[in-house]
Amino acid sequence: MSRGVFIAFEGIDASGKSTQARRVASKYGALLTFEPGDTPMGAQLRTWLLDATLLMTSQSEALLMLADRAQHVATVIEPALVAGRSVVTDRFAASTLAYQGYGRGVDLGGLIAATNMAVGSCIPDLTILLDVPTDVAAARRASNNADRFESESQDFHDRVREGFLSLASMNAELWLVLDGTQDEDVIAGLIDERVAALDWF
Amino acid sequence: MSRGVFIAFEGIDASGKSTQARRVASKYGALLTFEPGDTPMGAQLRTWLLDATLLMTSQSEALLMLADRAQHVATVIEPALVAGRSVVTDRFAASTLAYQGYGRGVDLGGLIAATNMAVGSCIPDLTILLDVPTDVAAARRASNNADRFESESQDFHDRVREGFLSLASMNAELWLVLDGTQDEDVIAGLIDERVAALDWF
Repeated sequence: MSRGVFIAFEGIDASGKSTQARRVASKYGALLTFEPGDTPMGAQLRTWLLDATLLMTSQSEALLMLADRAQHVATVIEPALVAGRSVVTDRFAASTLAYQGYGRGVDLGGLIAATNMAVGSCIPDLTILLDVPTDVAAARRASNNADRFESESQDFHDRVREGFLSLASMNAELWLVLDGTQDEDVIAGLIDERVAALDWF
Repeated sequence: MSRGVFIAFEGIDASGKSTQARRVASKYGALLTFEPGDTPMGAQLRTWLLDATLLMTSQSEALLMLADRAQHVATVIEPALVAGRSVVTDRFAASTLAYQGYGRGVDLGGLIAATNMAVGSCIPDLTILLDVPTDVAAARRASNNADRFESESQDFHDRVREGFLSLASMNAELWLVLDGTQDEDVIAGLIDERVAALDWF
């Protein structure tokens, strides 16, 4: 049986990635999943990770994200791919490098080593980055109860955005970077063109 | 204010380390703590980590241990040390290297990088290893409800024990290795002699 195709959507909050992830998963009958939190253990981890009132260092945050990812890969993503089902995830490894590495300043070398431990050989065939300026994203969000990340400064979100762009440029052949301020249909068309070119057996 | 003294007790289950950790903490008025699990978040992590029925890869296990440690260092150990209080912990960083690295075969380089992320500069002034043969430890345990680690094979525990001894030999000046099959009073005397020589200001 052929292995499923694995696609990750990345970007800052309110970049439009969740909408596109849902659409692509539906179009291809792929398993739609997300991080952090889409395992029984992960639901609790997500609650802690997003709780802006819980005292947590950047290192704790990073390691909790990675523990969640390791569990997500082992119990959700990898079993689906091995069974021939394709998987679309809303956030994956790049989010930890962008948020905890570029955003919070956790040592990137250590993060990469720990990420390799978490994901092993389970690497996305394609990572799609919806890039939007942080002021555009902030205007799209209308939340009164900002979580641990939404409540961060614009400087933080700027560093995260630049982090995603740096990661994309370092692995250009495995990333598709799109201007997330474009019309939703235009974005969908550009995604579909690239996704259709993947090896869907 | 002088920084507190930080002592870690290590060894396989039923090595006698918890008894000695309790005794030393009491004698010196140090904060007694343990891993995994001695934080509000850690209590849930410990439940997962010890649940032999929960599907978890070695990598998930390692990263969850490290997330627990990062939180333990940041919210319990480091604040106490900075405030001038000494800390005695029942298990610390060496347990992850011994159990998940030597025992389960998780890549040691990645584990060490992630451990450095978790502990930063919070390194024990002294690590005390109570070394006992695994058959002696097994005979001491009379548990009918073996946890994830207790239910492992003797081969696994042999690798863990050898891992602890290797780690001790690599950092000999910061470790005290004792034969845990000796009389409890003899062990206590040897520990007290070495602990008294630490810098208790």
